[in-house]
Amino acid sequence: MSKSFKIDYQREQRIGFQEVVFGASKNINQLQEIVTDFQKNGKSALITRTQKEKADVLCKKFKPNFYDEVSEMLLIGQFPDDAVEGEIAILSGGTSDQYLVNEVYYSLLYVGRKAKRFQDIGVAGVHRLLDNIDEIRKYKVLVIVAGFEGALPTVVGGLLPQPIIGVPASVGYGVGAGGTVALHSMLTSCANGISVVNIDNGYGAAMAAFRILNSINTQ
Amino acid sequence: MSKSFKIDYQREQRIGFQEVVFGASKNINQLQEIVTDFQKNGKSALITRTQKEKADVLCKKFKPNFYDEVSEMLLIGQFPDDAVEGEIAILSGGTSDQYLVNEVYYSLLYVGRKAKRFQDIGVAGVHRLLDNIDEIRKYKVLVIVAGFEGALPTVVGGLLPQPIIGVPASVGYGVGAGGTVALHSMLTSCANGISVVNIDNGYGAAMAAFRILNSINTQ
Amino acid sequence: MSKSFKIDYQREQRIGFQEVVFGASKNINQLQEIVTDFQKNGKSALITRTQKEKADVLCKKFKPNFYDEVSEMLLIGQFPDDAVEGEIAILSGGTSDQYLVNEVYYSLLYVGRKAKRFQDIGVAGVHRLLDNIDEIRKYKVLVIVAGFEGALPTVVGGLLPQPIIGVPASVGYGVGAGGTVALHSMLTSCANGISVVNIDNGYGAAMAAFRILNSINTQ
Amino acid sequence: MSKSFKIDYQREQRIGFQEVVFGASKNINQLQEIVTDFQKNGKSALITRTQKEKADVLCKKFKPNFYDEVSEMLLIGQFPDDAVEGEIAILSGGTSDQYLVNEVYYSLLYVGRKAKRFQDIGVAGVHRLLDNIDEIRKYKVLVIVAGFEGALPTVVGGLLPQPIIGVPASVGYGVGAGGTVALHSMLTSCANGISVVNIDNGYGAAMAAFRILNSINTQ
Amino acid sequence: MSKSFKIDYQREQRIGFQEVVFGASKNINQLQEIVTDFQKNGKSALITRTQKEKADVLCKKFKPNFYDEVSEMLLIGQFPDDAVEGEIAILSGGTSDQYLVNEVYYSLLYVGRKAKRFQDIGVAGVHRLLDNIDEIRKYKVLVIVAGFEGALPTVVGGLLPQPIIGVPASVGYGVGAGGTVALHSMLTSCANGISVVNIDNGYGAAMAAFRILNSINTQ
Amino acid sequence: MSKSFKIDYQREQRIGFQEVVFGASKNINQLQEIVTDFQKNGKSALITRTQKEKADVLCKKFKPNFYDEVSEMLLIGQFPDDAVEGEIAILSGGTSDQYLVNEVYYSLLYVGRKAKRFQDIGVAGVHRLLDNIDEIRKYKVLVIVAGFEGALPTVVGGLLPQPIIGVPASVGYGVGAGGTVALHSMLTSCANGISVVNIDNGYGAAMAAFRILNSINTQ
Amino acid sequence: MSKSFKIDYQREQRIGFQEVVFGASKNINQLQEIVTDFQKNGKSALITRTQKEKADVLCKKFKPNFYDEVSEMLLIGQFPDDAVEGEIAILSGGTSDQYLVNEVYYSLLYVGRKAKRFQDIGVAGVHRLLDNIDEIRKYKVLVIVAGFEGALPTVVGGLLPQPIIGVPASVGYGVGAGGTVALHSMLTSCANGISVVNIDNGYGAAMAAFRILNSINTQ
Amino acid sequence: MSKSFKIDYQREQRIGFQEVVFGASKNINQLQEIVTDFQKNGKSALITRTQKEKADVLCKKFKPNFYDEVSEMLLIGQFPDDAVEGEIAILSGGTSDQYLVNEVYYSLLYVGRKAKRFQDIGVAGVHRLLDNIDEIRKYKVLVIVAGFEGALPTVVGGLLPQPIIGVPASVGYGVGAGGTVALHSMLTSCANGISVVNIDNGYGAAMAAFRILNSINTQ
Repeated sequence: MSKSFKIDYQREQRIGFQEVVFGASKNINQLQEIVTDFQKNGKSALITRTQKEKADVLCKKFKPNFYDEVSEMLLIGQFPDDAVEGEIAILSGGTSDQYLVNEVYYSLLYVGRKAKRFQDIGVAGVHRLLDNIDEIRKYKVLVIVAGFEGALPTVVGGLLPQPIIGVPASVGYGVGAGGTVALHSMLTSCANGISVVNIDNGYGAAMAAFRILNSINTQ
Repeated sequence: MSKSFKIDYQREQRIGFQEVVFGASKNINQLQEIVTDFQKNGKSALITRTQKEKADVLCKKFKPNFYDEVSEMLLIGQFPDDAVEGEIAILSGGTSDQYLVNEVYYSLLYVGRKAKRFQDIGVAGVHRLLDNIDEIRKYKVLVIVAGFEGALPTVVGGLLPQPIIGVPASVGYGVGAGGTVALHSMLTSCANGISVVNIDNGYGAAMAAFRILNSINTQ
Repeated sequence: MSKSFKIDYQREQRIGFQEVVFGASKNINQLQEIVTDFQKNGKSALITRTQKEKADVLCKKFKPNFYDEVSEMLLIGQFPDDAVEGEIAILSGGTSDQYLVNEVYYSLLYVGRKAKRFQDIGVAGVHRLLDNIDEIRKYKVLVIVAGFEGALPTVVGGLLPQPIIGVPASVGYGVGAGGTVALHSMLTSCANGISVVNIDNGYGAAMAAFRILNSINTQ
Repeated sequence: MSKSFKIDYQREQRIGFQEVVFGASKNINQLQEIVTDFQKNGKSALITRTQKEKADVLCKKFKPNFYDEVSEMLLIGQFPDDAVEGEIAILSGGTSDQYLVNEVYYSLLYVGRKAKRFQDIGVAGVHRLLDNIDEIRKYKVLVIVAGFEGALPTVVGGLLPQPIIGVPASVGYGVGAGGTVALHSMLTSCANGISVVNIDNGYGAAMAAFRILNSINTQ
Repeated sequence: MSKSFKIDYQREQRIGFQEVVFGASKNINQLQEIVTDFQKNGKSALITRTQKEKADVLCKKFKPNFYDEVSEMLLIGQFPDDAVEGEIAILSGGTSDQYLVNEVYYSLLYVGRKAKRFQDIGVAGVHRLLDNIDEIRKYKVLVIVAGFEGALPTVVGGLLPQPIIGVPASVGYGVGAGGTVALHSMLTSCANGISVVNIDNGYGAAMAAFRILNSINTQ
Repeated sequence: MSKSFKIDYQREQRIGFQEVVFGASKNINQLQEIVTDFQKNGKSALITRTQKEKADVLCKKFKPNFYDEVSEMLLIGQFPDDAVEGEIAILSGGTSDQYLVNEVYYSLLYVGRKAKRFQDIGVAGVHRLLDNIDEIRKYKVLVIVAGFEGALPTVVGGLLPQPIIGVPASVGYGVGAGGTVALHSMLTSCANGISVVNIDNGYGAAMAAFRILNSINTQ
Repeated sequence: MSKSFKIDYQREQRIGFQEVVFGASKNINQLQEIVTDFQKNGKSALITRTQKEKADVLCKKFKPNFYDEVSEMLLIGQFPDDAVEGEIAILSGGTSDQYLVNEVYYSLLYVGRKAKRFQDIGVAGVHRLLDNIDEIRKYKVLVIVAGFEGALPTVVGGLLPQPIIGVPASVGYGVGAGGTVALHSMLTSCANGISVVNIDNGYGAAMAAFRILNSINTQ
Repeated sequence: MSKSFKIDYQREQRIGFQEVVFGASKNINQLQEIVTDFQKNGKSALITRTQKEKADVLCKKFKPNFYDEVSEMLLIGQFPDDAVEGEIAILSGGTSDQYLVNEVYYSLLYVGRKAKRFQDIGVAGVHRLLDNIDEIRKYKVLVIVAGFEGALPTVVGGLLPQPIIGVPASVGYGVGAGGTVALHSMLTSCANGISVVNIDNGYGAAMAAFRILNSINTQ
């Protein structure tokens, strides 16, 4: 049978970070072949959205590894042990968003950035945000996760000057099912200069933050 | 030709307020016949969404009258001169929402309630809201108009205990065109107990507020 | 790991009712930690949309408790035993809406209001509604649940003067799947002064009713 | 240039009624050629949705003719003078629907059926319908036009046994813009046995009624 | 607990056919109570969309009964044994539509009409339709079921004069998933006088056909 | 000011046909600069969707030229006078589609292919198609234009073996407005092997046909 | 019971290829009857989208057979052993698309064409495509599978002259769920002359390619 | 009448840039009052989307001023004359996007950044991009404008490491009308780390770029 993948190992050199694997729609055979290929090339493989059954099979076969059940992030390999702290803050509106907060967190850890998490500070109790605002002000880039009506980036964007990357969470029901309301709300925010990634795309938000830090660090 | 309308003059007795006329989709002949019918029955006719050309024709023919160009509200007749103040506050996120603020305002005036307007206090500069919060707290019912991402009701709903009626405005572009984002944002608000009317339905919001006051006043 | 929640215990003081927990998208670990936090603070925890498996675990661990399988409402704690009757009526169009009728009912019970339920009085047999109309007229606030084409609030809204909160139910199929038709039907009702909450948002409708009663009672 | 049309003159023989012309998207040259072709074949040409400018040109050129500005129905030729009465009733919810009531009416007149119109009997004042119900019961087929939330067919369908053809009107705004809510509301009606045509398709509803009468009359 | 249903036993007298039960969204307790109520009133209960697990429980408890797995139609009671033949033809585009063909078929049988089924005569092989056209011409009413692009009613509607009720089937994938394409295709058919029911609403189509026959038979 | 265009003159060499200009969203200044650039490079400029006002200005300034008002196709330059006939047939469902038939026709003429047009042979009168089927069978590639329910490609696709490119027309109203129904209908056709271009993309369909002929001719 | 299918065995003669069976929405009884019918007529039966449980039952009963788990393609019978190579290339953007690449591949094999597969050459690492471009240039028809943003056909379409059939894959999440973005992206491609089939319609793309080769080969 | 605006002059101090005015939905009276307010406060007023008629009135009344007809950007006041060059590149796919390129350009100029524009380098002729890639690599932040299928950010994102802000343009027709395809395409890009703003939100993209530079410059 024709081989179904070609890992892009030159990506890190071109754009600064390694290709990762989207696990949700690959079967276990494909994933095993891919991980083997990564290991042959001496690379850690980060696999996003790896359903638990598949993660169990892979973790049994490949070492070392790390798996977070909440975000379904699987690392075959090791996180760097010299991750830089203090540059990125991840804010989230509610407890239900934790899966996505963690996807951002571990994606950044994989590229050597240890972010700070500020969780459940949604605007229905705006004091929870205001109590943390001076602390949040210290970070260079803000990644803000929110589901339902997704208003958190708007309020933060009116208060703080940093780059803000909104990440809509597919948490909600009724017209809010699937996260489209949060996405659209962030896109139409009356607070300017907020940019957005796809619903549930924690990895993409992490890399957008990484691109910014990269650009800063090459000054 | 078959007569195309039957005004429901018993509505006021049944539910507390008179039928009004939706002007946007009626032609000038229909409107003239309807106004004549109201006058024969000794009633003022409130016509919402009356395009200026039609309003000019009707104002020339019927007296007394009142027309607000911003909201396209037309009254053939007179507002009550003993309207009650201090019960309802209308909040809005931006200047572009004024057409809708006024639709709420004049609809309430028609049923004898003089509302207070708090405009351009959107959450991109949340201090504009916070500076007014103690004043707003004094009103019994809040009608909140917002376009774009429609976050204002959420922040207010987390701070104040009154009944809140959200009115999405069709102000925006891109995914925000037509007001659907504001509507959906209000419907999925993480602040609880907010209810909503159709996009641009200022009249409906006014009558929802009126029904509440009616229920209060019959205690 | 970073703590994923911050319960907003000041909410009751600010807006009159306690924060509740949206159970559907939280895992069992998160729910256990949250309930423990509520108990430490001496509060009953109302958890909406708690799937049965999770409810079983929580009920085994925490006492006292109450669980309604139809609405998936879970209370860890006790309902107040002095709930006020006679203020709120809940109307519904069909038997399939019972899950939502109960969500409204228990949400109100949690804040000390015992509502009256009028079920299966949909307009395909309009006499079932008309037979009850004088009884329904006695309540101060009406919460109306309907799925499919959602016409019940329109007919009631043309007959009765009270505040009406429409709750679209996700009951239907074909173009009616998910409840969008019922929602849109209520939003565009030719009966004026009806306001609406999100599809399946029984809790929100209950709190909207509570805000109104609160405003009435503070006269 | 290639000729752009082929009138299907055998249609009447096959299915009982003549092809008509959809005027909205044809230019004046195409319409003139088509009318000429009808006249050569000794047929009256019914042109639906003929904007006034085009109708003026055609009426100047072709005789005899009839044009209704409200519905934009244009007939080049004559209605039959022996149209049958008492078989079809057209019901409508509001004055704004008159354009569509007339499209149904003149389409039926073209095929020799003179319908009875019951207008502005929408369910926000349900007594207006109930007052007419015994009269409406006498007709063999009901065509019901409604915009906004489109609840009229549901209430009628629960009260009367005849075939009911719902015609959604593109009258409304916000989520009701374009008539989709009325269409979906009729499709999901809890009153059974209602069938529906496309939004604003008065001609189609008329022909659906005609097919029924045809089937009845060939008993 | 409040009783959640009120069967409308007067419906048959008002509109000619008995209320049926929509089984999909009712739990087994609700269904048992409802069937008991039907039996107390001496009526057969037709329950549409009854998932097999529920049907098994009900069939064990209540006799006599009939269950068709393909359409999930459940009858607690008996079909009339004097059903009239030769009036209604059910046409379908493909084998996958059989579930819906049967829903129409058994719904009609319940009200005493035995329809004729013409299956898998979709227009991708138009000769299959043309071979049957003279036979189909003999029926008074045509119910046409189609999924995917739903073109069958259009071709039939251009060839035959009878009343045609289109029933879109939720058979398809990609943009065709859920049946919306078939619905919209039927609504915009260039063959005139076709009316349509909701996606998968076989029962509604059957009752629409029944209303027509009723009107014919009362001539 | 920065120059806003870079014509891709190597396109013909790479893929066999020259870049054309999408006129609808360019202003007159941009178009004049672009045409001048084409002329400098010795090329004819084909501009699609050129509104009449703009075409008039351009035709006045640049010679030779050709403008078709129906399709708004503008050629500054000359069609080849040795266009090949007999390879491509363009079929259309109705007169209203002529604008799109012509866009396909002139796009093909520009690349040296003279197509044959078969117009108004829609399936509501299927004999109009069947009468032409043997003639149509002679062409190597079929381009089929249809609006409304877009059933024509399905019926043709079940009868003939050639490559078929469906072109949905934005002709219709109600749910058919904008052409989405025709597009979706073609995509879900039960006749296999039909491929489709964007709504109103006559130029794209022409080039798809051209790519096929190109591939054939290079055998 | 009425027989639910009529296989169209004349299809091959009319349009060049045999009817295949869409397995996803047929139950095991229907499939067994259909396969038996094919065998009686001496034909191999290709069944697309056959879920594994059904395939297992059919493979046990009918011989010879072939089943590919990735694409769920089931053949009861044998592929031709003289399939022609070198005419068709299948390109795909990522590993997750393999299910669809295989559906195209086996559909073509069934009609006697052995395609060449180029997988995981998506444009996020455009060199993977450019490295293969001269090899791809040798094929007569290109079938291009892509999910997510579906940009691969655009880049290829700007580089190569062959007929290109885009096949959108339902691989993605957030706004990309279901494949609509890939479909729309291909339809609006700025590279001209690309045509498209329905999301996940690998079989249709294969037959579109086959129709082209057929037309070429009959020169 | 109640004053309809409250300019947020503290915004610059809080988040680094001044409030601007969204001109499209404000009437001339509102705009004049707002500009007067800006001038009283000694500030330049940047008004986006100012239709030409309104711009003419304002330019006549207020000096100095600048108006760009392509982007409808109006400045009452002066751009800073010490704008920094070399930091931001604006890329665009086609000439039709120039209105949006200019909105980004002048928004940045207003906050003291002079961007470099690379126009009409869309991927249908990918060499136009590749020829400029080394030049583009020198900039710290990339803003990429694209309509239609919006593939440009994907190809660039796979080649270059900088922060990339995608701006979907509402240029297109059929399924591409309104810019949703470009938006969705960018959101689902297989090139990671791209973030996106609302359709046509050039100002928002400019401010997102400005926030990044701000964060860089405060290192």
